[in-house]
Amino acid sequence: MSDTLNPGLEGVLLDESALSYIDGEAGTLLYRGYRIEELARETSFEEVTHLLWEGELPDASALDSFRSTLAADRAIDDSVDAVIETLVAAEETPMAALRTLISMLSAYDVVQADDDRARLREAACHVTAQVPTLLAAYHRRREGQRPVAPDPALSHAANFLYMLSGERPDPVIAETFDMALVLHADHGLNASTFSAMVTASTMADLHAAITAAVGTLSGPWHGGANAAVMQMLREVDASDTPPAEWVADALEAGRRIPGFGHRVYSVTDPRASILSEASEALAEAAGDPRWIEYSAAVESYMREQKQLAPNVDFYSASMYHQMGIPTDLYTPIFAMSRVVGWAAHIVEQRTDNRLIRPRARYVGPQERPVPPIAER
Amino acid sequence: MSDTLNPGLEGVLLDESALSYIDGEAGTLLYRGYRIEELARETSFEEVTHLLWEGELPDASALDSFRSTLAADRAIDDSVDAVIETLVAAEETPMAALRTLISMLSAYDVVQADDDRARLREAACHVTAQVPTLLAAYHRRREGQRPVAPDPALSHAANFLYMLSGERPDPVIAETFDMALVLHADHGLNASTFSAMVTASTMADLHAAITAAVGTLSGPWHGGANAAVMQMLREVDASDTPPAEWVADALEAGRRIPGFGHRVYSVTDPRASILSEASEALAEAAGDPRWIEYSAAVESYMREQKQLAPNVDFYSASMYHQMGIPTDLYTPIFAMSRVVGWAAHIVEQRTDNRLIRPRARYVGPQERPVPPIAER
Repeated sequence: MSDTLNPGLEGVLLDESALSYIDGEAGTLLYRGYRIEELARETSFEEVTHLLWEGELPDASALDSFRSTLAADRAIDDSVDAVIETLVAAEETPMAALRTLISMLSAYDVVQADDDRARLREAACHVTAQVPTLLAAYHRRREGQRPVAPDPALSHAANFLYMLSGERPDPVIAETFDMALVLHADHGLNASTFSAMVTASTMADLHAAITAAVGTLSGPWHGGANAAVMQMLREVDASDTPPAEWVADALEAGRRIPGFGHRVYSVTDPRASILSEASEALAEAAGDPRWIEYSAAVESYMREQKQLAPNVDFYSASMYHQMGIPTDLYTPIFAMSRVVGWAAHIVEQRTDNRLIRPRARYVGPQERPVPPIAER
Repeated sequence: MSDTLNPGLEGVLLDESALSYIDGEAGTLLYRGYRIEELARETSFEEVTHLLWEGELPDASALDSFRSTLAADRAIDDSVDAVIETLVAAEETPMAALRTLISMLSAYDVVQADDDRARLREAACHVTAQVPTLLAAYHRRREGQRPVAPDPALSHAANFLYMLSGERPDPVIAETFDMALVLHADHGLNASTFSAMVTASTMADLHAAITAAVGTLSGPWHGGANAAVMQMLREVDASDTPPAEWVADALEAGRRIPGFGHRVYSVTDPRASILSEASEALAEAAGDPRWIEYSAAVESYMREQKQLAPNVDFYSASMYHQMGIPTDLYTPIFAMSRVVGWAAHIVEQRTDNRLIRPRARYVGPQERPVPPIAER
């Protein structure tokens, strides 16, 4: 046992994982051996979910069966929908609402607070299938609209956009959104994934672990960053200052520029490059280059002046915005994808499980007697 | 950066903490310098909460004011009570219900997803005050009874017992229960506390962090152990086998005996000794020595044959049982006390915060091309 402190556990190796490989210096991300660029281009979210959970990409028949299973699990209980109304009435934030609702799903799911892998997988399927339903219903109710029932004929990505707007999505938008889900599905032991593992390490059930992860992802230093990027782009848009100058002023004023830098990547996050291209394509199609131009200008400034590259959150902001998705749903959409990685890491943690419990160095008062209350 | 794996982070020092000091070899536990034995004997749960949150035991006037603040925050919103009815109707387990309900409280609380210490403290007060109300209301509703409104004249411990049964508790029972809350309030970076810190490290709000911790505590390897001890004692009671023989048979059959051994203590957990005395006193008062006799016999066997000492969960089982508390509320009661430690560690984590994110060693497939679906 070493007596070195490890704040943030930076550089500490917890355990082995066969899920994602990250080379921060080369800017490489693999899911089970496949480059994220290839997966984004050639596979769907359902295929990547199968890859992460089962170890291999599905063949046509396995994919078909997996898609049907996921699509069949999308409906939520009426009691859960009633709580959505309650949370909307209380003006709860979307991420906090999602946390409460996912936690609540356990009341309507298989009980699996044990080491049964098949049950863990079944619960993971249910939660993954239902997160889009929860989010879309929450959004529609706060807009004063009735939720739209899921359409099992649509893919996971297309069905979410359909439940959100009530209209079949444009195929290009649906494909781009599907790609965004692929990009966010896993990323090693990021804080939310690690938090799911800590919870699962006490043999707590999958809902407890996923709920913990949603809460962890909600933090502005983690999943909250994509929404912060969009807020910044709006500020740039509302100002009369050119983007580079705006950033210089903001840095001068001590503000943190969201969407840059990453604990793991020292060069470009490969996901940022893919998202940047997708965002540019959407801008061209819509004939409104504003958001991508602001983004590019901010990126150039940060690269040149701060030697910082954009991360996955930076270009997802303009991309989701151009798809018409409300800013406060960006982080919940991150959760909608990352839930797959959380579940995969929970299953890994439960294989040869060890309780996760570090120690702290005590720096409080030396032993002292309890004074009677009159002498305090 | 070392390339040694640290499964379970065993022996890994995360950071400094001024909250509790544990010497596992000497069997010592201090909260901010005070021995747990002295605190248990001489201070109330409110005093210990003040100690952990503010750094010092309160004088009479500070205690009075702190008690009033906590007591004034006990009521819950009607919408939360409606969800309690929903969860009872769905036969949700108490720990999962508590997780969902604490998560839901954020909709009715101050928003504090930032670094404002005063707001964190305020939210901690609210959650700590409301956990007993949630639990008691849940229990009464599942028994088909109406919840009992909190009585601000009663202490945190006495008020919970009152809201649970509808009757003013016997003073000895209330004091013993208060002592149990003191014993469970903090214990270094146990898994649930650590999980609260991981969540808080992304700057997520206090409700997210406490919700994560409740989920983590629910696991049978952590807070779930006290209920498992009681189930075992009931099995012993129902069998015709003497306790020591029953344990020998159970071990022979490969069963895990709950309530023994601890990652940190190699000798007796000091909390177990205090609880054992309290449990014995209750047994004498009630004239029913059964549960304490079974417990003592199981302890002797485990000490002699397995060199394992009882932990905090072991004697809390017989103690709560003798107070008439239903077995499935033992772990929620653990949460009711530990929420104070969680909040204290969240505040420490937020002081000079660092995102908590370890790494994993990738052991998956080497880089490989994505095969077309027809070739998989």
